[in-house]
Amino acid sequence: MPEVELPLIGDAARRARAAARVLRTLPTATKDAALLAMADALVAHADDVLTANAADVEAARAGGTPDAMLDRLRLDADRVAGVAEALRQLVALPDPVGDVVRGSTLENGLQLRQVRVPLGVVGIVYEARPNVTVDAAGLCLKSGNAALLRGSASAYRTNVVLVQVLAEAAAKAGLPADSVQLLPAERASVGELLNARGLVDVVIPRGGAELIQRVVRESTVPVIETGVGNCHVYVDASADADMAEAIVLNAKTHRVSVCNSAETLLVHRDSPLLGRLLTALADAGVTLHGDPAVIDAAARSGLSSVVPATDEDWATEYLSMDMAVRVVDDLPQALDHIAAWGSGHSEAIVADSASAIGAFVAGVDAAAVLVNASTRFTDGGEFGFGAEIGISTQKLHARGPLGLPELTSTTYVVTGNGHTR
Amino acid sequence: MPEVELPLIGDAARRARAAARVLRTLPTATKDAALLAMADALVAHADDVLTANAADVEAARAGGTPDAMLDRLRLDADRVAGVAEALRQLVALPDPVGDVVRGSTLENGLQLRQVRVPLGVVGIVYEARPNVTVDAAGLCLKSGNAALLRGSASAYRTNVVLVQVLAEAAAKAGLPADSVQLLPAERASVGELLNARGLVDVVIPRGGAELIQRVVRESTVPVIETGVGNCHVYVDASADADMAEAIVLNAKTHRVSVCNSAETLLVHRDSPLLGRLLTALADAGVTLHGDPAVIDAAARSGLSSVVPATDEDWATEYLSMDMAVRVVDDLPQALDHIAAWGSGHSEAIVADSASAIGAFVAGVDAAAVLVNASTRFTDGGEFGFGAEIGISTQKLHARGPLGLPELTSTTYVVTGNGHTR
Repeated sequence: MPEVELPLIGDAARRARAAARVLRTLPTATKDAALLAMADALVAHADDVLTANAADVEAARAGGTPDAMLDRLRLDADRVAGVAEALRQLVALPDPVGDVVRGSTLENGLQLRQVRVPLGVVGIVYEARPNVTVDAAGLCLKSGNAALLRGSASAYRTNVVLVQVLAEAAAKAGLPADSVQLLPAERASVGELLNARGLVDVVIPRGGAELIQRVVRESTVPVIETGVGNCHVYVDASADADMAEAIVLNAKTHRVSVCNSAETLLVHRDSPLLGRLLTALADAGVTLHGDPAVIDAAARSGLSSVVPATDEDWATEYLSMDMAVRVVDDLPQALDHIAAWGSGHSEAIVADSASAIGAFVAGVDAAAVLVNASTRFTDGGEFGFGAEIGISTQKLHARGPLGLPELTSTTYVVTGNGHTR
Repeated sequence: MPEVELPLIGDAARRARAAARVLRTLPTATKDAALLAMADALVAHADDVLTANAADVEAARAGGTPDAMLDRLRLDADRVAGVAEALRQLVALPDPVGDVVRGSTLENGLQLRQVRVPLGVVGIVYEARPNVTVDAAGLCLKSGNAALLRGSASAYRTNVVLVQVLAEAAAKAGLPADSVQLLPAERASVGELLNARGLVDVVIPRGGAELIQRVVRESTVPVIETGVGNCHVYVDASADADMAEAIVLNAKTHRVSVCNSAETLLVHRDSPLLGRLLTALADAGVTLHGDPAVIDAAARSGLSSVVPATDEDWATEYLSMDMAVRVVDDLPQALDHIAAWGSGHSEAIVADSASAIGAFVAGVDAAAVLVNASTRFTDGGEFGFGAEIGISTQKLHARGPLGLPELTSTTYVVTGNGHTR
């Protein structure tokens, strides 16, 4: 069925497809039992996992990988226990498969039900962190999908052991043996996955902008984009001073390396808070990149180190202790700025004016709009959805945190008693 | 924002993007008033439309276009009145924009609402029939989207007049002037539309398998696939004889040129109905393509003209008075056949056995599964959804008839009072 040769992954994909046909029919209890067995097996085999991981870390260190990357790659007993616990928590989440999304009886007596079904085979392409291997496998299985995991080459030894442990435990608990498979780490296996149309139902890239762009460009399999967040906080003229300072600081500095951290601050020209916000950010260690009005205000506040901002600053997801700051003439100009430069992830307004809030919510086109709250709240856990496989920044299928229901499709089941047209 | 040059459509796409930012904020009443004005304008300018259409038809005839295609291209006063009436009927349908899909108050007091919003700019690529121009424009506007329409070159004169009439009426009623635009008919404009990432939010191809394959292969803009239907009817051993005959005949012969007509009949080896079904189909003028068991049964029923079926028959969407017929050993073999050859559109079972029905519904992965009903019911109008822009055969975003809610995305609106993490 796929139109291209798949020497590296074709066999795995065909076996995943067969597994998916069984998985879609399994009751929740069977899937939950498998998740618990997988968690137990991870804990039981933690030593094997850590041995393989130590080899990956050592090879990466020898290859000159920087410390921050090594930390993302490294597992320890606590981290293994943590991912095992995350599998157990999936058991408590409702199984979306079989949910009736809508239903009715038509005038002619036909009974119509739109029922949630698994997507089928889900391919996930991700970078260093091996905990994604476990999280993704758990989310896919709970939602009745077979998983094809393509982790990074740097974590390959770790991932081999993790997937072997998970797959064996799942099979013993009654799931098909090919429900979770690790794909080879060769570079070409990503390209094959992206072109396995007819065998793979969706590819979800988890990683930086470069990976996501490649996937979007090359893939003939449908893609759910995740994770690039060029997020803004707009401080309206009506904003409360303490609230604005707390939200701006939190959105920027609480955790700078994540997609829901803020990158640009937009301040209304009439707001008296600009100097205070700049000082608070500078005191917190943030490097400011400002337009001329910001540079002026900073100088008046005794701050001399503001970098002149260029278009590149408005476009950049820093993921660091840097923030671009711009003074806008009014709310429409803030909306124009966000429309021009935002990535459609999370946009926040701090304001006390109901009309300003209403215009901002109506005018911003993003996965999440936050009113008097930090951008950091855009998160499956914070939203109460449980685990997430990423945060979608696309408009089709799912936008925002991707939980279990977002890993399903639907089928219309139409029941008659001999109905013809 | 798009990474490629768009000499043919770039300007239109940028203006559509600006229009979409206004459209998303308009109340239902404004959009409905525009739809009524558009309907009135079409009727008022019917002569202009028909003059342009006569020129298109004449040019197509001179170019050797076959009569069946000419009929799809041709408008008359009744057809113009029909599409105008379809616009009026959109007014009665609920506006999905602003619907709260889910909402809750989190433990920390944050108020979470998932709200329907328009997709933004919708590109539609379609073939001869100019009524699609009006239907697509109406569905996009009612759901708050700007429409970029790329009809076929053969209908270009007609489409120019239709879009001019629609856009003028919409603008007079308060919609942005660029809410509906026709793209140039040059072949390259399709390629540009498919690569207008960042300006166009989704492309929906309406047409044959070749068009849809091209769109899927080339597009970096997200795509909703529509319309290829290799649909099956499975007649179980438990099927009622009259019901089976009525459903098989209806699914095959009611309208052969549409995607929800049946192409393959699968009959359980233990069913006594094979001869009767073959005779009824042959009597209705259907050319049968059968496996050896079917050819034997046909001979016993005095039918000599069954064509031996090959894999090509199982794969083909005939869209004609042809039907492939296979005898299967049991229901699992029917499921295997459908999984191997079906296009995921509509699959029907005729059976009285509840366990057979249950296994079929659980095992078939398609947009619609029909139990004791004809495949012809998979249709937005039949399902009570009103107008549809096509029938999606993909699993992401929307599966089955694409009505107004399927032309929307969502935004999470998160309201706090100074919430930080």
